[in-house]
Amino acid sequence: MAADGAVPIEGIAAKVLQGDRRALSRAISWIEDRSIEGRVLLDRLFVADARAHRVGITGPPGSGKSTLTSQLTQVLRERGARVGILAVDPSSPFTGGAILGDRIRMLAHHGDPGVYIRSMASRGSLGGLASTTYEASEAIEAAGFDWILIETVGVGQSEMEVVQVADTTVVVLVPESGDAVQMMKAGLMEAGDLFVINKYDREGGDRLFRELTLMLDLSRDRAGADPTSAGWTRTICRTVATRGDGTTELLDQIDAHRRHLRSDAGRWKDRQARRMDQRLKSLLRDRLLHDLERSGEIDRWVSESRRRILGGEASPYGIVDESVARLLQGGAGFHESARREGVKR
Amino acid sequence: MAADGAVPIEGIAAKVLQGDRRALSRAISWIEDRSIEGRVLLDRLFVADARAHRVGITGPPGSGKSTLTSQLTQVLRERGARVGILAVDPSSPFTGGAILGDRIRMLAHHGDPGVYIRSMASRGSLGGLASTTYEASEAIEAAGFDWILIETVGVGQSEMEVVQVADTTVVVLVPESGDAVQMMKAGLMEAGDLFVINKYDREGGDRLFRELTLMLDLSRDRAGADPTSAGWTRTICRTVATRGDGTTELLDQIDAHRRHLRSDAGRWKDRQARRMDQRLKSLLRDRLLHDLERSGEIDRWVSESRRRILGGEASPYGIVDESVARLLQGGAGFHESARREGVKR
Repeated sequence: MAADGAVPIEGIAAKVLQGDRRALSRAISWIEDRSIEGRVLLDRLFVADARAHRVGITGPPGSGKSTLTSQLTQVLRERGARVGILAVDPSSPFTGGAILGDRIRMLAHHGDPGVYIRSMASRGSLGGLASTTYEASEAIEAAGFDWILIETVGVGQSEMEVVQVADTTVVVLVPESGDAVQMMKAGLMEAGDLFVINKYDREGGDRLFRELTLMLDLSRDRAGADPTSAGWTRTICRTVATRGDGTTELLDQIDAHRRHLRSDAGRWKDRQARRMDQRLKSLLRDRLLHDLERSGEIDRWVSESRRRILGGEASPYGIVDESVARLLQGGAGFHESARREGVKR
Repeated sequence: MAADGAVPIEGIAAKVLQGDRRALSRAISWIEDRSIEGRVLLDRLFVADARAHRVGITGPPGSGKSTLTSQLTQVLRERGARVGILAVDPSSPFTGGAILGDRIRMLAHHGDPGVYIRSMASRGSLGGLASTTYEASEAIEAAGFDWILIETVGVGQSEMEVVQVADTTVVVLVPESGDAVQMMKAGLMEAGDLFVINKYDREGGDRLFRELTLMLDLSRDRAGADPTSAGWTRTICRTVATRGDGTTELLDQIDAHRRHLRSDAGRWKDRQARRMDQRLKSLLRDRLLHDLERSGEIDRWVSESRRRILGGEASPYGIVDESVARLLQGGAGFHESARREGVKR
């Protein structure tokens, strides 16, 4: 595969591993483009034992996620860590106005070689966004960054999928976010390992803190859904990110969660295995769709099927069900490949 | 397939075709559940020559889409049409508060046998939502409804996908939606066949109307992207839906678009063919993923692959690429099925 392109890919891979930022940016562009180069590169950069810690930061528009991300980055830098930031916006066109302002705030870290910032341009690739975001984080990790902060703009379902590729998920709320019951319904209470009430100095901060505390008490046992969370007590941090108030404490909590995850070797291994299983399934789905779309065979199938359907011979449902059965049957044994030689590494 | 269940499915199908609402609701639940029953039923209900007109209604939260939908329904009822309404909410948990209020407004049509209202509960099935919504609209059409209004709660990308299964897409804006340049960037200007400025009596209504008019003049030629739109001049309706102002005019415009679409037999046929092609591809993708997840084979593949990866033998990327190639190769000729007998109808 990509015999001609082998030399530049290997060159880029080597440079990424040396921490070359320009090579890293090119690598992420390949990943975003879902190109063959990107796939080969990811294969080269992969390490089974991930070391970087991924923090997903989500919450409603206007809750100050970018400012918090910037503050966390500053504290991490003071502690000597190298920080990658992925800013993801898969959501509403109507939040567009806020983005530029948020990004400008991130200029604080411009020129710091220990900080790498990248926006994930995503419109039009909804399905694969969680996947490409995770892949980009693998490239950033390969370039030697210790922490990767994944920040989303909205809180739709796709954003939740994106942040949940993280090791620690931080849910950011503000006093005006609405009541906690609503958030619980939306699944946010289950998703968060840590909660932040940002802009805590505003009216309603104390009320939200009390509500949220009650909610967390009520839903304390998440171990059923996620065994990794056993023994972890979720906390609520109160911050005023624009002033930097509370951000050191927040980072300490995130770090406590990081240490908790790895504190029990058996549990950590189980968690890695479960994550890998999810990752494999999502990769298989993602690549299967992509490669199917690219193959010419699909076009022949479409035009022949359309002719029959519009001619009243069959319904799309009947045809698709039969074709899928045939495809899966024909491909039976595809899992055998896992036992064979696979790619040369 | 479903030999045991054949009798009840046929019974439900027959009742749906007679316009039985209870059977219709059960049918849509099967479709939402993505059950075998749903698939067989859709096959039975399918007609190649769709007659109902589908109107997608999208726009930012708070723009009054539900009120407009309710008003349009009222005017359609006065004209003797039977109306199905699909309310779709795939998006942010933070808009949850508005939904109940919106639905309550729809109670105006409660008890009217000529109106069928259904919410598409969707959390957790993001990928297939456009597909299941369209399928639900086919069941509603089979039950004898002439118009189907598909209303979304938000305006994220998934909502856009959902409304674009419609024949006519209406984009609803309000004076406070933000400026038109931003909307154009977001692709809303391309998506809309008709625009509504609702709550037109508020400050900024005239300014938005002027901006939008200018934008539409600038982007007049959509025929490149969508040949069906050739010859259609997009208009902007000004409404105050809470008072019913402008809704009759809006319906007239929607109806004009409906007639425009069908006015040229050749163009209409081309359009139906292109739509069917998209539908076939999206169905194939959807069912392939679903059936792959359900098959036990995927689990064997996952555990074997994980073992190799965590053992450092291969990367997930290498394994997945090879497995996908094998699956598609093994399934080569799957499109042959389109030429064979297929399902009995």
